Amino acid sequence: MHSDRRVTFYHAPRSRSAGVRILVEELGAEHDLVALDLQAGQQREPAYLAINPMGKVPALRHGDALITEQAAVYLYLAELYPEHGLVPPVGDALRGPFLRWMVFYGSCFEPAVVDRALKRDSGGRSMSPYGDYASVMQALIQQLTPGPWLLGERFTVADVLWGSALGWMQAFKLLPESPEIRRYVARFGERPAVRRAAALDEALIAARKPG
Amino acid sequence: MHSDRRVTFYHAPRSRSAGVRILVEELGAEHDLVALDLQAGQQREPAYLAINPMGKVPALRHGDALITEQAAVYLYLAELYPEHGLVPPVGDALRGPFLRWMVFYGSCFEPAVVDRALKRDSGGRSMSPYGDYASVMQALIQQLTPGPWLLGERFTVADVLWGSALGWMQAFKLLPESPEIRRYVARFGERPAVRRAAALDEALIAARKPG
Ligand SMILES: N[C@@H](CCC(=O)N[C@@H](CS)C(=O)NCC(=O)O)C(=O)O
Ligand SMILES: N[C@@H](CCC(=O)N[C@@H](CS)C(=O)NCC(=O)O)C(=O)O
Repeated sequence: MHSDRRVTFYHAPRSRSAGVRILVEELGAEHDLVALDLQAGQQREPAYLAINPMGKVPALRHGDALITEQAAVYLYLAELYPEHGLVPPVGDALRGPFLRWMVFYGSCFEPAVVDRALKRDSGGRSMSPYGDYASVMQALIQQLTPGPWLLGERFTVADVLWGSALGWMQAFKLLPESPEIRRYVARFGERPAVRRAAALDEALIAARKPG
Repeated sequence: MHSDRRVTFYHAPRSRSAGVRILVEELGAEHDLVALDLQAGQQREPAYLAINPMGKVPALRHGDALITEQAAVYLYLAELYPEHGLVPPVGDALRGPFLRWMVFYGSCFEPAVVDRALKRDSGGRSMSPYGDYASVMQALIQQLTPGPWLLGERFTVADVLWGSALGWMQAFKLLPESPEIRRYVARFGERPAVRRAAALDEALIAARKPG
């Protein structure tokens, strides 16, 4: 591994990488920020496609290593700062549920929400990697019910992923109305790191606006 | 964590869990097998929905922990057997690329292949979590080109996930014609664990057939 912990963070405000900026704040992670303007199409320029050929944020560079895909980015960065304890280690009773919910986000939850946003069906319960939208939402709500966090008492990096994602999905009305989701999103929103990240992103957007 | 390594493995032959059976063979993992008959709909019976509310295999139970979602299942099981070295640990130069490709599988690759199988488009480059099918396939082929394995010289659990998935996707003609993919699938298929797992699954299917 690259010997120091400083990473380059490829980011765009008001996008899926906003949650990674929250994680950066939670960890106090040393980083160089590369802010992309998605409206201007910078994510499809060759310089960025060399980082992520999918043309998507978030991404990290750490020494020679490139990391893309939300769950991988969150895991990698949180593992760099073990003293914050955001990753249940191998051997911990939460390790299994933790991995399950980290992976479930991108392989079931986002596909279900994207199909919903596109107003198309899942492709059939057997064909689809997630089955059906209602079961996915029911599983999430059941998981959030004990609280306060996704895995119970312990706050983990899975909460940064889920807390930030559920926030924007709720704002875009892509989720069913649920007091458990609403409560969880509100609780997450009270964290100082969330407020700091939001303020930094607002400043970034303001600085972009012409004169 | 549960003190011994024995897990319950929820499996169906000729499905996405076939690759996990290969991993079980690679690791010599102690397990109790629960074989589900997907045609008979056993994955949607209440007993199994309590394990995975999505009604999907593979799944693992280890003590009280339930693990679902392919990448999580592969990671969890390989982490239980660190002496096999199938998981680049935190601090290893391969850790970042390893996490990237483990997560990319379920959050970009499978959605792209499922959309292709359903003969529907990605929903638009910006809306879709993966962008477009061609870029996804190009990124994969580029990653496989140096070889022999996905991350180069080192065989990891990512190869069990990708090797088995590309095998069935190639058989179903869901991938572009590519010598790199073909070679990788063939190389993976030569592993003794792949052959043992296939023989065990054939025996399971044969035992099911009425007299
Ligand atoms: N599979 C990716 C999805 C990331 C993603 O969709 N990012 C959006 C930001 S909201 C993006 O970069 N969109 C730019 C575009 O495609 O135009 C991941 O999990 O990281
Ligand atoms: N997102 C799941 C997808 C698993 C999946 O689609 N499994 C298929 C096996 S090929 C299944 O269980 N299908 C049964 C059904 O839905 O009827 C994962 O990554 O584990």
